[in-house]
Amino acid sequence: MTNDHPAPQSSRRRYLALAGWLALCFAAASLGALFMPGEWHANLKKPAWNPPGWLFGPVWSALYTMMAVAAWLVWKRGGFAAQRRPLAIFLVQLTLNAAWTPLFFGLHWTGVAFAEIVLLWLAIAATIAAFRPVSRAAAWLLVPYLAWVSFASVLNFTLWRLNP
Amino acid sequence: MTNDHPAPQSSRRRYLALAGWLALCFAAASLGALFMPGEWHANLKKPAWNPPGWLFGPVWSALYTMMAVAAWLVWKRGGFAAQRRPLAIFLVQLTLNAAWTPLFFGLHWTGVAFAEIVLLWLAIAATIAAFRPVSRAAAWLLVPYLAWVSFASVLNFTLWRLNP
Repeated sequence: MTNDHPAPQSSRRRYLALAGWLALCFAAASLGALFMPGEWHANLKKPAWNPPGWLFGPVWSALYTMMAVAAWLVWKRGGFAAQRRPLAIFLVQLTLNAAWTPLFFGLHWTGVAFAEIVLLWLAIAATIAAFRPVSRAAAWLLVPYLAWVSFASVLNFTLWRLNP
Repeated sequence: MTNDHPAPQSSRRRYLALAGWLALCFAAASLGALFMPGEWHANLKKPAWNPPGWLFGPVWSALYTMMAVAAWLVWKRGGFAAQRRPLAIFLVQLTLNAAWTPLFFGLHWTGVAFAEIVLLWLAIAATIAAFRPVSRAAAWLLVPYLAWVSFASVLNFTLWRLNP
């Protein structure tokens, strides 16, 4: 068997794994969908540069998809046995990502949510650093995510300070 | 229409929601399944009262199922609109639960994992307190979970101190 023609089962297993990573990332995403921005969010004082509400859905869908593909590219290099550390850092950032919506939109703890999104930013940066030696493509796939979370952190901070 | 015979659609929606809560809780559970305790865990110094490995799977499966039913019982009382706060606290505890395995079995950060499981313990206690006025059954369904996490915290602490 040559490298160009991998075994069908191995290829099937690989695409099942991609489906698994997508399912995991969109499970985190679903926490965002559970708390629809309602009256509380509508009544917050917002900065002039606050993006329109319709933008967040498509942006996050794209980011979660890229996140899943990035994790899968790293996982492909030997699975959890070989990539335990980078995948663990990835999963820690995913749990921090999932926790933000219940803190901000669920509990309205804008200050705690800001502290938490700073941790998330650090965890994404650590994930990029851990992915880079394994797959440069995987590391690059997370750069738009880090950029968006940088912006989201500034927005979270501003909403916290404007609405004490 | 009487109360004894709810509309079929409403009943279907209710059971779909139960499926959703189960999916969300078992997505958190899947992070536990990704990191199979391997050589590192086998070589840890363990206390005499460390439970056998086969016990953890069935115990956690039962606890995640009870967790999902508890959240569903609260959700049934008016959904996210009416139960925003207790469900948000529940989801925060679920993200803390999901984060523990990558920290402990993924990164081998036994000290950080201990700090994190203490936060989880507090979040479960807060969830029980928030569920109790809405559904006493939901609160009771989380008591075995709190008991197990109490035990798991002591075990985590002991493994951390025995293996510096």
